[in-house]
Amino acid sequence: MIEPYDDIYFMKKAIQEAQEALDRNEIPVGAIIVTQNRIIARGHNLTETLNDVTAHAEMQAITAGASFLGGKYLKDCTMYITLEPCQMCAGALYWSQISKIVFGASDSSRGYRNMGTQLHPKTEVVSGILENECAALMTEFFRRKRALN
Amino acid sequence: MIEPYDDIYFMKKAIQEAQEALDRNEIPVGAIIVTQNRIIARGHNLTETLNDVTAHAEMQAITAGASFLGGKYLKDCTMYITLEPCQMCAGALYWSQISKIVFGASDSSRGYRNMGTQLHPKTEVVSGILENECAALMTEFFRRKRALN
Repeated sequence: MIEPYDDIYFMKKAIQEAQEALDRNEIPVGAIIVTQNRIIARGHNLTETLNDVTAHAEMQAITAGASFLGGKYLKDCTMYITLEPCQMCAGALYWSQISKIVFGASDSSRGYRNMGTQLHPKTEVVSGILENECAALMTEFFRRKRALN
Repeated sequence: MIEPYDDIYFMKKAIQEAQEALDRNEIPVGAIIVTQNRIIARGHNLTETLNDVTAHAEMQAITAGASFLGGKYLKDCTMYITLEPCQMCAGALYWSQISKIVFGASDSSRGYRNMGTQLHPKTEVVSGILENECAALMTEFFRRKRALN
């Protein structure tokens, strides 16, 4: 039997969110939260639009997911994110006790791993899913930005 | 000349916010943001009320302060917080490039220092202002909680 709902399927949905951010000239990061093969929350980076450093894709998805579930813990949930989370978002994921995070591109400068942020011990991590596609969005964003200057 | 607006004056305002949280049976943490001796944002922990792990006092104050200023960076601003920030809040403060943070009580288990979170290099830190008063609120919260069980 073919399993249509795999990490690649859901990462493509996160990439769609990142594309929404790119279309608004935002750094293109998208996130979705999935439980039992169902998407319960979506978010994309809106820091420029909202003038708010806390408006990362993950933060919005965490708030939306908890609202959907009616509880603040994201147990039995997986977040798909196009880019490795930053300290803030990893810190929020720590509090959420989310079961699993799956991210696409790595962020060697501001990502939580090199910054030394701790995830919850219960949280499983998978990285590199559709990494090239996720990174290509970031490259496109910075290419457009340079073209404007 | 007496300077009425010092760290103790503003920490008392943050403690008032923490008291608001305590009155709602929330972990009592309060935060305010000050620029040029003017309070431009206030927040208190609402994680239980809002079912949202991201609803820490600091996060709400950062969003409100940036909204007031019309820009996402909190330059020339000081945040007064009753408790040492966690990874998430320190990560958000990193992005905000805030000039200074002043906190009361330390948090040896979940505070950003022991967790290894990095603040922005431009951010000055002062700790221990009205530490006993800030810590007393936390003690009172956990005393009430134990009394209920």
